[in-house]
Amino acid sequence: MEKKIRIGICGYGNLGHGVELAVNRAEDMELVGVFSRRDLPGTASGVPAINLKHVLEYKDKIDVMILCGGSATDLIDQGPELAHHFVTVDSFDTHPRIPEHFANMEAVTKANNTAAIISVGWDPGLFSLLRVLGDSVLPEGKSYTFWGKGVSQGHSDAIRRIPGVKNGKQYTIPKEEYLEAVRSGKGTDAPGNEMHLRECFVVPEEGADLKAIETAIKTMPNYFVGYETTVHFISEEEFAKKHSGIPHGGFVFRNGKTDDTTGHVMEFSLKLDSNPQFTSSVLTAFARAMYRLHFEQGKCGAFTVLDIPFAMLSPKSPADLRKSML
Amino acid sequence: MEKKIRIGICGYGNLGHGVELAVNRAEDMELVGVFSRRDLPGTASGVPAINLKHVLEYKDKIDVMILCGGSATDLIDQGPELAHHFVTVDSFDTHPRIPEHFANMEAVTKANNTAAIISVGWDPGLFSLLRVLGDSVLPEGKSYTFWGKGVSQGHSDAIRRIPGVKNGKQYTIPKEEYLEAVRSGKGTDAPGNEMHLRECFVVPEEGADLKAIETAIKTMPNYFVGYETTVHFISEEEFAKKHSGIPHGGFVFRNGKTDDTTGHVMEFSLKLDSNPQFTSSVLTAFARAMYRLHFEQGKCGAFTVLDIPFAMLSPKSPADLRKSML
Repeated sequence: MEKKIRIGICGYGNLGHGVELAVNRAEDMELVGVFSRRDLPGTASGVPAINLKHVLEYKDKIDVMILCGGSATDLIDQGPELAHHFVTVDSFDTHPRIPEHFANMEAVTKANNTAAIISVGWDPGLFSLLRVLGDSVLPEGKSYTFWGKGVSQGHSDAIRRIPGVKNGKQYTIPKEEYLEAVRSGKGTDAPGNEMHLRECFVVPEEGADLKAIETAIKTMPNYFVGYETTVHFISEEEFAKKHSGIPHGGFVFRNGKTDDTTGHVMEFSLKLDSNPQFTSSVLTAFARAMYRLHFEQGKCGAFTVLDIPFAMLSPKSPADLRKSML
Repeated sequence: MEKKIRIGICGYGNLGHGVELAVNRAEDMELVGVFSRRDLPGTASGVPAINLKHVLEYKDKIDVMILCGGSATDLIDQGPELAHHFVTVDSFDTHPRIPEHFANMEAVTKANNTAAIISVGWDPGLFSLLRVLGDSVLPEGKSYTFWGKGVSQGHSDAIRRIPGVKNGKQYTIPKEEYLEAVRSGKGTDAPGNEMHLRECFVVPEEGADLKAIETAIKTMPNYFVGYETTVHFISEEEFAKKHSGIPHGGFVFRNGKTDDTTGHVMEFSLKLDSNPQFTSSVLTAFARAMYRLHFEQGKCGAFTVLDIPFAMLSPKSPADLRKSML
């Protein structure tokens, strides 16, 4: 049996729990421990829970550290700190700050002979890969990304901050007519806000002013203004029964032509019962690639999903992949 | 302006014509010429048509040679011959012989400090990439590939060889009920032949025995036996009007779960007005990657699509891709 890839998890929210599941199910990996700033009472699978202040004691015991910090703000500080000592994988998703985070990680990893991959997940991540593939294969064309149907955490949080709201969840939903226009190759010039609906399920506090809550949601700048938004008030029981999951998904399309009359449609879509569990599975596959990149090929520096050949994601050998999957 | 990538095309059937279109539309590429065993009267775009016997005179004038031989048999001989002298890209698609072709190309390219990528296109090719991605991200699951709706050249040729058949075309069509079963995450255990229909359009010779033709088609071993097959007899005019294109496409699915109750569906699909033109566009993007791999990174040897990071397919810079597409 070959040596297993020794994985550490840093952060124990939804994402950390998902990575714990994925790593424990991967035959070529071994989960060394879960690190947290908090003193965790334990972990779901029984692997050690370790306070983050002891992380340097694990420098030679962990090959790849998967950063599952709760927010992008965590990652922008924690990423460079941990990349001083570890090969890291993160899911940094604050789009305008990606070049800055990449530059930080590039500097730290080059100076310390480590390696890091940033912005891994499904968007950014798998969707980015498909956007680049579409743009490269069909240079004369147009790309479209749709999100949903799925829960937007940011919008759900925004709803829950409104006075009189006890609980709330927002689903982003692609409008069927735009999906069809793009899937048929006809395309659309509609902006993103027109191509999506926002559907909100709200549990009001007793005696709350429902009309005022609805208005507060629909007129919230940056979040809901410009979107077709529907608001449903429901009971706490119904909320618990129907809206406790974190499903998500979406679509990446490329419509392009190869001569004046010959068109093509490429479509990639995801339907996910659990957004964090799927994201965790993507992080885990790219952790395998980073192990190979750094420890087998000797590479240092910062990377993104666009730099990783797919053969490196698989536990199978290149010859086996050529024989069975090509 | 940076130096353009100098491309040669070897073979001038549908695929060669498609590559000619794609390379002429790529701003970072220059098409040097089209090579053929025949003395071509000229090319569609006016680039030089050159007899293959002069190919060695172009050794220092071409960076990447795209092999567009008409059949897999062409490629298995021509590939190693040309890879002695050139960096090559081919679309070898005889699945059971891929390991053999890879080994041949690996030996020649290593011995001669060249590089080759084999089996580029959409299947093998993009579909292979998506199969590996699905298998790597959702290791507990099942993959499905559907082909069509589209023209199967091999089956159309087989029909045209039947006595009494003047012209014929066969469409492979995925059955909607199986697509839906897989797309919903329910999955299926049906074998590939049950998941597809074969629809045939036949122009009979005058006075031909239609019943005999239909029976000959439906009972043809390896091609039609085991498939639900329909045969339509049509006039030459209708054939020319409705069945002169070479559309194709298909679907790759991965259904998988990340814990006992949490499932996910990944779907990739193509709808192509012209199978050879799209395949040509894929070959052209991977020719760009091979230029970089060999001439910028100094790599030699045989490769497949599974070895190529997507950033290398794009004419855009890595920093630009991170900023605009990640």
